[in-house]
Amino acid sequence: MSLKIALAQIHFSVGDINANLDRIVNAACHARDHLGAAMIVFPELTVTGYPAEDLLLRSDFIVVANNALYQLLDRVSDIALVIGFPEQDGEQLYNSAAVLHQGAMIACYRKQILPNYGVFDEQRYFRAGHQPCIFEFNGCFMGLTICEDVWQPSILAANKEAGAEIVLTLNASPFNVGKISQREAIICQHVQEAQLPLIYVNQVGGQDELIFDGASFVADAQGDIVFRAIEFQEQISVVEFHHGQPVKADCAPLLTDIVAVYQALVLGIKEYVRKNGFQGALLGLSGGIDSALVLALAVDALGADKVEAVLMPSRYTQAMSIDDAIQQAVALGVTHHCISIEPAVTAFNDLLADVFVGQGKDTTEENIQARCRGVILMAISNKQGKLLLTTGNKSEMSVGYATLYGDMAGGFAPIKDVPKLLVYQLARYRNSLSPVIPDRVLTRPPSAELAPDQVDADSLPPYEILDPILERYIEQDQSAEQIIAAGFSAADVARAISLVDRNEYKRRQSPPGIRISTRAFGRDRRYPITSGYRGICKSS
Amino acid sequence: MSLKIALAQIHFSVGDINANLDRIVNAACHARDHLGAAMIVFPELTVTGYPAEDLLLRSDFIVVANNALYQLLDRVSDIALVIGFPEQDGEQLYNSAAVLHQGAMIACYRKQILPNYGVFDEQRYFRAGHQPCIFEFNGCFMGLTICEDVWQPSILAANKEAGAEIVLTLNASPFNVGKISQREAIICQHVQEAQLPLIYVNQVGGQDELIFDGASFVADAQGDIVFRAIEFQEQISVVEFHHGQPVKADCAPLLTDIVAVYQALVLGIKEYVRKNGFQGALLGLSGGIDSALVLALAVDALGADKVEAVLMPSRYTQAMSIDDAIQQAVALGVTHHCISIEPAVTAFNDLLADVFVGQGKDTTEENIQARCRGVILMAISNKQGKLLLTTGNKSEMSVGYATLYGDMAGGFAPIKDVPKLLVYQLARYRNSLSPVIPDRVLTRPPSAELAPDQVDADSLPPYEILDPILERYIEQDQSAEQIIAAGFSAADVARAISLVDRNEYKRRQSPPGIRISTRAFGRDRRYPITSGYRGICKSS
Repeated sequence: MSLKIALAQIHFSVGDINANLDRIVNAACHARDHLGAAMIVFPELTVTGYPAEDLLLRSDFIVVANNALYQLLDRVSDIALVIGFPEQDGEQLYNSAAVLHQGAMIACYRKQILPNYGVFDEQRYFRAGHQPCIFEFNGCFMGLTICEDVWQPSILAANKEAGAEIVLTLNASPFNVGKISQREAIICQHVQEAQLPLIYVNQVGGQDELIFDGASFVADAQGDIVFRAIEFQEQISVVEFHHGQPVKADCAPLLTDIVAVYQALVLGIKEYVRKNGFQGALLGLSGGIDSALVLALAVDALGADKVEAVLMPSRYTQAMSIDDAIQQAVALGVTHHCISIEPAVTAFNDLLADVFVGQGKDTTEENIQARCRGVILMAISNKQGKLLLTTGNKSEMSVGYATLYGDMAGGFAPIKDVPKLLVYQLARYRNSLSPVIPDRVLTRPPSAELAPDQVDADSLPPYEILDPILERYIEQDQSAEQIIAAGFSAADVARAISLVDRNEYKRRQSPPGIRISTRAFGRDRRYPITSGYRGICKSS
Repeated sequence: MSLKIALAQIHFSVGDINANLDRIVNAACHARDHLGAAMIVFPELTVTGYPAEDLLLRSDFIVVANNALYQLLDRVSDIALVIGFPEQDGEQLYNSAAVLHQGAMIACYRKQILPNYGVFDEQRYFRAGHQPCIFEFNGCFMGLTICEDVWQPSILAANKEAGAEIVLTLNASPFNVGKISQREAIICQHVQEAQLPLIYVNQVGGQDELIFDGASFVADAQGDIVFRAIEFQEQISVVEFHHGQPVKADCAPLLTDIVAVYQALVLGIKEYVRKNGFQGALLGLSGGIDSALVLALAVDALGADKVEAVLMPSRYTQAMSIDDAIQQAVALGVTHHCISIEPAVTAFNDLLADVFVGQGKDTTEENIQARCRGVILMAISNKQGKLLLTTGNKSEMSVGYATLYGDMAGGFAPIKDVPKLLVYQLARYRNSLSPVIPDRVLTRPPSAELAPDQVDADSLPPYEILDPILERYIEQDQSAEQIIAAGFSAADVARAISLVDRNEYKRRQSPPGIRISTRAFGRDRRYPITSGYRGICKSS
């Protein structure tokens, strides 16, 4: 008894049901005709893409998504399709998986565990199902599960008890650093406990802030991985089962964390530009490390011919910044422009002189410089239909060390969730492949260059101290006391978290960026702007 | 048997537990000493403020919130406090109401119905309770309920069955147009069915996008309102119960929709400025209707001495725009500045000439003008510590008829959820109180004045057509087919919804604004930016 099952680790487009149907049909025909598969398993909510967010509240959208199943019944034969769709039943909506075969739906399962934490809002849209779904295919009893289900041991155990011999899992499991090994460890533990081979199909691609890494896999009844698809790439693969046991196949190696993050960022840029129909991307290249990394990422994602760099020096820009920026633009072969912001800055300072009479200089004047750069970059973006990439990192976003409508301007912020120290690591990794970022950019002290001889360390603790404090406060929800107890100075902790607390208003207007941590700014972290919470609520 | 129960319709501060404790103690002492109350009922989640959003995921915050109850036990005696708090029990968090009396907690109830739709995310934070909570106080059996609970008939019925004679309801029920009468109608229907008198205490105030309107009330067992507090104002009132039946008291009249919206907007501005510590507010005054209304609202909220208007004419600004703007600023007694943007616009056009060589003019040049205004306004905001109010309305936000970082710049957008036609109605209402907006502003055709002789009607359907299409599409989730079937032209519908679909990226970076509809842009409407959905998903 042999059975070949295909894993469709492919891109889907949120909201574009017709395009997704075409992708399903093409993948199924390929799996049937070229891979000899009798069944193909797709990711979670295949038909609508994931996450479709509040599109799921539109009845027109849901009607089309449900009708799509009937179209698929007609369009593909001689292979079973296991697809995800939002199932309407009366007033209720379920996150469901259907098995379509020879013109009939032979099984339909409703997801039981609906995540409603982090970036997930599934209880906003769906009711939970309450039972396993086992169906027979080619003499084998198979159970259906969806994503969060298999992170709980109880669901696999219930499948086993209900008679399943193989479990199929449809997923849309987003990436963060360390996620792939965590996912495999937890799920394979449950597989081992239930003694039930499992096929795990994850989508791949970028959707706004989320990256789906793929890394689909098959585990045998002992919980050992017998197949793993490549991370961050489309791949339709097939695994053979003999008497219900999977035959060992190719296992793509797990990437290291740095390589995985780099590839996630490249994929995120590529997908956002492609899916939103931009002609390419541009960015302000300052000679600093952040824009240097974003330029390298953009070129790796889109190709040098699609990327433009804009240098915008002021009186405070050091010569080495310009030299290094030009050197990198030339090394990567991208078009670059050099536009001094001085005439615009002078115009604004003159226009405001009467209103500001008698008042000294402060960050207002620094912000004007940053905002003049924002106007220039947005103008080029508007004129050329290119996406403006914002180059700020997570450390800056955390403490508000950025100018709203200035360096924060842009449509997409690739390294918004990357702390400064990780920016350096990623830049060094990229240079290890080929040297594109000048050494001096990696070694000089970081500076915003908005005032004479300014460096970040003037107003912030060193990043070696700041970054771990931020990670503890933002990602781990540690209190100030806990962070101090871990060995950080009370002054540094108070400074860092007070800046985080006060700058929610800036983050609320920041462009979306790629999530690589367990808590990115965006859907993942929903803080009030108006808030009396100040790091520590003293219990008086 | 007589019993006086106080309703504490007051402000609370999200996150500031110590300040909230002081407010609770002050209100309780006032109700005891001046109103003769034996019990005082507070709004939902009194201790933390509502909605505290992801602060509720911080264990330090929850510990302080739970300890706060023990402080209250010590700080107030001789009056029973009914307060809301996030109750930690092991790993679980509940949205709870506690009754504190003479140093002991005599009852504690866990909210059973947790809203997870619209602006609500309660299932992200809380587990649901599973039973009513009845306690005896002064010989009367009282039931505890929290907000969403009483929108369901089953919960009041269960309270009745469990022996309740009076039901207390703690609420944080946000305002939208028509909400107050809807709320009373539904809840009083349930009261009538259960034959159970009900005390409904709602918080009042603004919290980021949400306005809480107060309008606390008491209904007798027949479902008739016997007391209603004033809308949009703090009020601690007392209602007397004889043998479990409420004695008729003052009923503040219900405001008309227009007056209610106007007051909601004024309260929203006032609260955002106060709670975030701004010195006042400023805005760009164009001579158009939107900024005219926002100026009137700001003055009514903050006083003329706290508000500044900035006129920023360009070569496309008509003389009447300047005249009307000055006339209004003078009528309202606010400081105004007039700053021509021409030198800055010229500087940018010159700077970009080389990059744009050979390319014609398009919206890029219009956006540069709007962004120069944004730079000027933000500079004044930064220098003076005043909140920049964004003046765009909901019709513009819907179709993207606004410039990101230009007229969209600002910290708060008071009329972001107000459609253009309602902007006119609100302006006329304000002028009916005292004439502050020049007539011509109300009668001339709306224009962005970014190109010669430009008017909105050049690129958009008239607002009489656009606004109802937008309401159907955005608030009612109607499909294009449904809107066309209601009598709108296919061309207008296609144009409007295609603009809505394509402009999610702008809205994502817009400042928060005041929610007055059943679906505001913000937490209320969570659409993907990257989306293949285009109004109608043709089922091919």
